[in-house]
Amino acid sequence: MKKIAMEYRVPYADTDQMGVVYYGNYLTLFERARNELMRACGYTYKQCEAEGWMLPVVHAEVDYRRPAKYDDLLEVTAWCRAHKGVRLEIACEVRRKGEEDLLVSGYTRHCFVSTETFHPIPPPEHFISIIDQ
Amino acid sequence: MKKIAMEYRVPYADTDQMGVVYYGNYLTLFERARNELMRACGYTYKQCEAEGWMLPVVHAEVDYRRPAKYDDLLEVTAWCRAHKGVRLEIACEVRRKGEEDLLVSGYTRHCFVSTETFHPIPPPEHFISIIDQ
Amino acid sequence: MKKIAMEYRVPYADTDQMGVVYYGNYLTLFERARNELMRACGYTYKQCEAEGWMLPVVHAEVDYRRPAKYDDLLEVTAWCRAHKGVRLEIACEVRRKGEEDLLVSGYTRHCFVSTETFHPIPPPEHFISIIDQ
Amino acid sequence: MKKIAMEYRVPYADTDQMGVVYYGNYLTLFERARNELMRACGYTYKQCEAEGWMLPVVHAEVDYRRPAKYDDLLEVTAWCRAHKGVRLEIACEVRRKGEEDLLVSGYTRHCFVSTETFHPIPPPEHFISIIDQ
Repeated sequence: MKKIAMEYRVPYADTDQMGVVYYGNYLTLFERARNELMRACGYTYKQCEAEGWMLPVVHAEVDYRRPAKYDDLLEVTAWCRAHKGVRLEIACEVRRKGEEDLLVSGYTRHCFVSTETFHPIPPPEHFISIIDQ
Repeated sequence: MKKIAMEYRVPYADTDQMGVVYYGNYLTLFERARNELMRACGYTYKQCEAEGWMLPVVHAEVDYRRPAKYDDLLEVTAWCRAHKGVRLEIACEVRRKGEEDLLVSGYTRHCFVSTETFHPIPPPEHFISIIDQ
Repeated sequence: MKKIAMEYRVPYADTDQMGVVYYGNYLTLFERARNELMRACGYTYKQCEAEGWMLPVVHAEVDYRRPAKYDDLLEVTAWCRAHKGVRLEIACEVRRKGEEDLLVSGYTRHCFVSTETFHPIPPPEHFISIIDQ
Repeated sequence: MKKIAMEYRVPYADTDQMGVVYYGNYLTLFERARNELMRACGYTYKQCEAEGWMLPVVHAEVDYRRPAKYDDLLEVTAWCRAHKGVRLEIACEVRRKGEEDLLVSGYTRHCFVSTETFHPIPPPEHFISIIDQ
């Protein structure tokens, strides 16, 4: 299954007065990685919406092990860890680039939803075949 | 002309590693104050959009004099400082509640725009009469 | 055990192009509620840091059931759902004020840590006695 | 004088319910560009702080001409447009990569300040010589 890695340079904006990246900002980082995962699959999230479906987050979990800091060059990896019916789970891991220590990890669970009705819909078959490659 | 004051408690999320509120976050604070200014005028921004017009920001200026800090209870004041044709300017000032020292001040310039065409439109007359009260 | 409820008016800043509050922003909302929970206990988080200890988040989980929208007046409740040794868990629930439907719920797990060494430390006894009231 | 260009991919997090990048988020984008400008000068902002001085923002202005949208690949340019005594101004421009239309432009004015006293200090000579290259 496809797995991507993207780089991210931490701005001052992401830090808090503890001198580390604020815990809520990792969910934006996870989103950036999901976007790149889909782009790498040849099917951007923007296209999904244009085709009439979305993947809103229904559940998120994050483990904070070590803090990322200002100006760190992070490497964020993302992959689809499971999908079944209308549900899809994307896992993410955050490290400093070139280092093995895991800083933060987690996953988000998504539901395939119509952009018109906001109701769950079966995932497009071509999308699932891409995910399973 | 109407002038409102609203309270805002600074969360950790707003701070940066310098131990003060990150400079970009004041624009969100200005928006919160604009929302309350319109509500106090009996005409929420949500209603504006429902009626088919918006007020996107076309220009913003901020002066940073003294820093706000975590857990500060701020008082933000806002008022319409000018309007002419399709343009409207809202001024904001940020202080610690109960203190006179000005921490941050600035204004945003807005343009009346149709939610359908995104083109400038004349402001609704009833809105202007409210602003001028 | 102490339980607080706080109000929060959703600004445009919190929304995304799906027209709902962006999923990552709820973690800031959880933090706002935790701050008020501690204030209600007569012991602000600012005081904790001044006394030499912090409560960084080591794990967070969020369930997204229904979306909050722009200008919604939310009610966020928070309470300590568990504590043992150096760990503490704070639960949060988000509703529209005056409505019963749960929009978002979740919890954060924290670790008592020294502000000097960043190592785990036993929780101050007076703090635990407050939490257990 | 040095001028840099950096790429930035717009996440969902940056958008608002108008379907465009929220106006406050450009100040974070300006900061990202300033960081890269300093790195290109061979002198990161992190080093500045380590050497005992900072460059807090004392004034910011932004012109919003056209909106950036989700998944746009932006190109942000930054350069020092002026410096005199303890003041320094950094200009920024935001475009879609490969396009000429200016979306957003602005500048931030900074003050050289000691990390210990928070008082204005003369800029380090080696820093000014780098800026003037």
